[in-house]
Amino acid sequence: MRAEVIDLSKERKVTLTAYIQDVEGEFAFAKRPAIIVLPGGGYSICSDREADPVAMAYLKAGYQAFILRYTLNGNGAWPDPLNDYEQAYELIVSRADEWGIDTSKIVTIGFSAGGHLAACTATIAKNKPAASVLIYPAILKDICDMCQPGLPYPNECVDGDTAPCFIAAARDDSAVGIKNELMFELALEEYGIPFESHIYSFGGHGFSTAEEWVVTNSAAGRVKNWVQDSIDWLKETLGTLTRSGFTEPNMAVSKNGDFVPVLSVMCTLGHMVKQDEEAQICLKPFYDRVNAICDKNGYTFEVLCAAMGKATIRELMETVQFTHDEIMEFDRKLHSYVNRIDV
Amino acid sequence: MRAEVIDLSKERKVTLTAYIQDVEGEFAFAKRPAIIVLPGGGYSICSDREADPVAMAYLKAGYQAFILRYTLNGNGAWPDPLNDYEQAYELIVSRADEWGIDTSKIVTIGFSAGGHLAACTATIAKNKPAASVLIYPAILKDICDMCQPGLPYPNECVDGDTAPCFIAAARDDSAVGIKNELMFELALEEYGIPFESHIYSFGGHGFSTAEEWVVTNSAAGRVKNWVQDSIDWLKETLGTLTRSGFTEPNMAVSKNGDFVPVLSVMCTLGHMVKQDEEAQICLKPFYDRVNAICDKNGYTFEVLCAAMGKATIRELMETVQFTHDEIMEFDRKLHSYVNRIDV
Amino acid sequence: MRAEVIDLSKERKVTLTAYIQDVEGEFAFAKRPAIIVLPGGGYSICSDREADPVAMAYLKAGYQAFILRYTLNGNGAWPDPLNDYEQAYELIVSRADEWGIDTSKIVTIGFSAGGHLAACTATIAKNKPAASVLIYPAILKDICDMCQPGLPYPNECVDGDTAPCFIAAARDDSAVGIKNELMFELALEEYGIPFESHIYSFGGHGFSTAEEWVVTNSAAGRVKNWVQDSIDWLKETLGTLTRSGFTEPNMAVSKNGDFVPVLSVMCTLGHMVKQDEEAQICLKPFYDRVNAICDKNGYTFEVLCAAMGKATIRELMETVQFTHDEIMEFDRKLHSYVNRIDV
Amino acid sequence: MRAEVIDLSKERKVTLTAYIQDVEGEFAFAKRPAIIVLPGGGYSICSDREADPVAMAYLKAGYQAFILRYTLNGNGAWPDPLNDYEQAYELIVSRADEWGIDTSKIVTIGFSAGGHLAACTATIAKNKPAASVLIYPAILKDICDMCQPGLPYPNECVDGDTAPCFIAAARDDSAVGIKNELMFELALEEYGIPFESHIYSFGGHGFSTAEEWVVTNSAAGRVKNWVQDSIDWLKETLGTLTRSGFTEPNMAVSKNGDFVPVLSVMCTLGHMVKQDEEAQICLKPFYDRVNAICDKNGYTFEVLCAAMGKATIRELMETVQFTHDEIMEFDRKLHSYVNRIDV
Repeated sequence: MRAEVIDLSKERKVTLTAYIQDVEGEFAFAKRPAIIVLPGGGYSICSDREADPVAMAYLKAGYQAFILRYTLNGNGAWPDPLNDYEQAYELIVSRADEWGIDTSKIVTIGFSAGGHLAACTATIAKNKPAASVLIYPAILKDICDMCQPGLPYPNECVDGDTAPCFIAAARDDSAVGIKNELMFELALEEYGIPFESHIYSFGGHGFSTAEEWVVTNSAAGRVKNWVQDSIDWLKETLGTLTRSGFTEPNMAVSKNGDFVPVLSVMCTLGHMVKQDEEAQICLKPFYDRVNAICDKNGYTFEVLCAAMGKATIRELMETVQFTHDEIMEFDRKLHSYVNRIDV
Repeated sequence: MRAEVIDLSKERKVTLTAYIQDVEGEFAFAKRPAIIVLPGGGYSICSDREADPVAMAYLKAGYQAFILRYTLNGNGAWPDPLNDYEQAYELIVSRADEWGIDTSKIVTIGFSAGGHLAACTATIAKNKPAASVLIYPAILKDICDMCQPGLPYPNECVDGDTAPCFIAAARDDSAVGIKNELMFELALEEYGIPFESHIYSFGGHGFSTAEEWVVTNSAAGRVKNWVQDSIDWLKETLGTLTRSGFTEPNMAVSKNGDFVPVLSVMCTLGHMVKQDEEAQICLKPFYDRVNAICDKNGYTFEVLCAAMGKATIRELMETVQFTHDEIMEFDRKLHSYVNRIDV
Repeated sequence: MRAEVIDLSKERKVTLTAYIQDVEGEFAFAKRPAIIVLPGGGYSICSDREADPVAMAYLKAGYQAFILRYTLNGNGAWPDPLNDYEQAYELIVSRADEWGIDTSKIVTIGFSAGGHLAACTATIAKNKPAASVLIYPAILKDICDMCQPGLPYPNECVDGDTAPCFIAAARDDSAVGIKNELMFELALEEYGIPFESHIYSFGGHGFSTAEEWVVTNSAAGRVKNWVQDSIDWLKETLGTLTRSGFTEPNMAVSKNGDFVPVLSVMCTLGHMVKQDEEAQICLKPFYDRVNAICDKNGYTFEVLCAAMGKATIRELMETVQFTHDEIMEFDRKLHSYVNRIDV
Repeated sequence: MRAEVIDLSKERKVTLTAYIQDVEGEFAFAKRPAIIVLPGGGYSICSDREADPVAMAYLKAGYQAFILRYTLNGNGAWPDPLNDYEQAYELIVSRADEWGIDTSKIVTIGFSAGGHLAACTATIAKNKPAASVLIYPAILKDICDMCQPGLPYPNECVDGDTAPCFIAAARDDSAVGIKNELMFELALEEYGIPFESHIYSFGGHGFSTAEEWVVTNSAAGRVKNWVQDSIDWLKETLGTLTRSGFTEPNMAVSKNGDFVPVLSVMCTLGHMVKQDEEAQICLKPFYDRVNAICDKNGYTFEVLCAAMGKATIRELMETVQFTHDEIMEFDRKLHSYVNRIDV
């Protein structure tokens, strides 16, 4: 593994540390996923406790890992940190072949103020990450304004294009209260953005990876689970890196299909039945099975739609026992139809 | 282990199934914790998939386990199910010696509509459980009204007396949307009620223990973790049952001390400094250390309070390196002072 | 769940406790696996600490669970305990329909002296279990003779018909030294019997499930892992119980195919090449790929056999990239050929 | 983190790769534990799959990590690889201050042929590691001779000075049969050397960390547990690195006290009663409690010694309910008495 520190801005003291693992040779694949670590510290420092220890965890999981030490208070002001990220992202893309990176699988992870920055990458960045991991992120007005006047409030920035998010924090965090996570999750929920969330009963603020040599507070034993859980969630979201390359992502963690440009089995039933005739024809074998069940149980298709309209076509296909392969085949076909989003 | 089914109401078809493990003898202790399982099913059925499999998990963890099959639609209406719970709770208390139960450690767990009932036990019951485990609970108006008109909405019932809660659900739940959990957690947060929450990326509705023989949906591998995680959380909240009886609960999961009748190290600094003079004197060794740090860093105690006012005395005592035993000693002393809640 | 205590011998005070879970209805399947728990206690008692707590763990995992309190010293002598087991096993088989049990998936688990009895069920019983779980079992002469004169020494009873075994113990066990497990595993290894073994650094003797309310010694935190690990191993060995019945067992944990009556992909290459011509023809597509690799690398098939002769056909088929389905198809075909065991 | 490749011998192509994490600053401690990774490959290659992925796992756990690419066949012969290790060890010690390493906590880990080398560091090296992790190590004559004529057979080298070992392998390993691990463990058992062992039902040879991007065989899901399990075992064996430095090692994983120069609570009762009078006096409070129990149960101290003579004083003190602190106090006192090993 090679370690390299790249100056992104000497003036604003911005650096990108790159930890690059081998590809090819005994590792049969040519490309790895990548993660950009954004340490916390109230935009006043970049905490070492939230830098290397985090990078090591993702290196172990097969990632190319980068630590972005972004512009701090005194050296500049918002949107400098976000611009630092854009610069880092574009540098990584430009050197992706050299560094063995799959550019469709670049992820961000941030802690506290770095979690604020990560939430901004997921919502308002030009270069959106494939997914974002937010650990006790600063989200709401009170804490953001205290870090630096003029920061955006990420919960107000969520829309249908927001990247999937993994969120972890402790309920007893007295620096960044748990309302920060809850309000952000409500926003994700509103737009059907996939997420996973773990709020542990205690652990305070700043637990980082919660390894004994890193953690400073008393923390529930479960707190350290976020590390492997986030890695497993990323496997579902991006596909798993194996010796023969990446597996397919798991459909079940995909974005709500109602909000994306083409149809898919991730659309809800209530949304799908309002789409164009051609899509309905494509789905006839599915509707046939559903109608047979309605007949058998003595209620109409409309009654079923009222009760199950929020279920996805995928879930319903599983329920009426289409195989995984059949569902994948339907999914592929549906991709050729435009999604009438505002029906 | 003995199994017994007790009729609570033949008319409304209400039963309490009791699974009672041995105490004493080779098990040196005389009392176990107890759990009351409230299966789901929209108040129209009590699902078997959310009854025995759940009881087995807690039996393994050392609990006496009870399954309450409460009043269903058609046999009665709200508040019958809650009254069934009160009756069950009081029966358990009345037979606690015979059944080897510590009555200060009776817990509820509920799923979906049973999760609604469990949330009601935590908020509005006469007999509050020591803690409550809510798995994909129905909370909000829409889903509650669909189950049965006239149900209370538990998020509107939370107050400072609400029991600590453990909450788990899947983000892609299309029957009881994830907003149910988030709104309930916001209410818990508002009143400083301890909780833990796990929202898994996918798993749909009704995963129960998520063992392969129980689960019906496709679910993330992490979903089954809620079972052991809830048991571990209950160990912190109630104390752990060992051969020589229960350990002390972990202070860090206690209710926010600002809301309870007497002072404790679980009060926040901002709240404590407004209390009576006697309490301040009791805490002098703590204030001395804190002031020494303020002096060293060149800021006033008032500045520290502004920044750290939401931190608990416990957290701050840990930070200034009082030992666990010393903190426990302060805690005991503080219990003799009335808490001026509305300062 | 129903609980029932059945007298197998009033004279010798032998009982079988049956814990029977529901099948069918909401549990779509008709049959569950079953486990017979054999508590320890030097054939002088049957420890309660190794009875119910163990049954609860397997009930949670979906098993029908039985506790056999076998003949103790004073009430009888060897082979009474083994005969008690045979009687229990046959009773379970005779009531399998009533109790919802798949008779091909009856497992034994034993602790200490009960582990000795379980090891005897796996080796010399008339009714062999499908698999056996041995927790700190008494195996060697010294400890067996101390329990009761005349006991068989299970390591001397292992042969090609021995059931697959899961073994756990602590290295610092001063009652039944770790040599007991090691010598038994050497015997299993000699006959190619599948097994899994976990020897924890410390935990002493008698940790049972190692839950805090059961354990008496100080034990490494990992010790309690044996419970879920044994359940997962049994899923591989017997197939996993799902809502739609059992999955196929995982071939990789099967017995060494060299010792069973018909050929399979679990035979080693060195054994397979000595079989009849028809089997070789059936395997031609496999040999073709292997020979192509030999040619490419410039060595002969004989050289490959010398180096890889102990690898199974399954492993080699995976290496030369046959799919799982193709391997299963080869396996089915090979089952029609008699295995020339003594080639 | 810094990465550095150091040439130990250009002629024999021996290198030491050093991955050095920060100490001090936000990491309050000055010294970390260190691990030397010895990849496998039959002494013909050093596999990349058993180099960096392993180092990453231990970096995450807080270690300074080194990869030793030792002398391969063709570039030299035994004992060159062992000498390479001695040179690497001495280099690490000489730069321990610069690199922030606690020289009493240097560990080796090896795989296959590298596991052979690691087993040699634990048994016959001049510079013994504090502990050694052996993953599917080559131990027995057959496989050793095949790698390189003249290799020592580590099971024949074990003695009372051998370092504690953690061992993992798969039962279906057809390259290095499981007998290698079993015979080595029997040797460790003979000399009372602490060890932990996990033999998984399947996983073949060469699974390394068993992450999906590293593993080549089909392997039981449990196989990857060895990584965290070995880290947790090392915490017990060496003490845990926390922000305020290392905790004390856990007495329970210590070497059998009967074999070390001074007395301790890790001596067995049978050994202790034969020691000098002064030690007996020091232990009087312990003997008093034990004798009270003998009296109460109506048997003599000699009978107790016969039954429990292999139990350690620590275990017995726990049984008669001395506190942890009291046991530690006895331990310190006993250290001032010479151990009469050959009594």
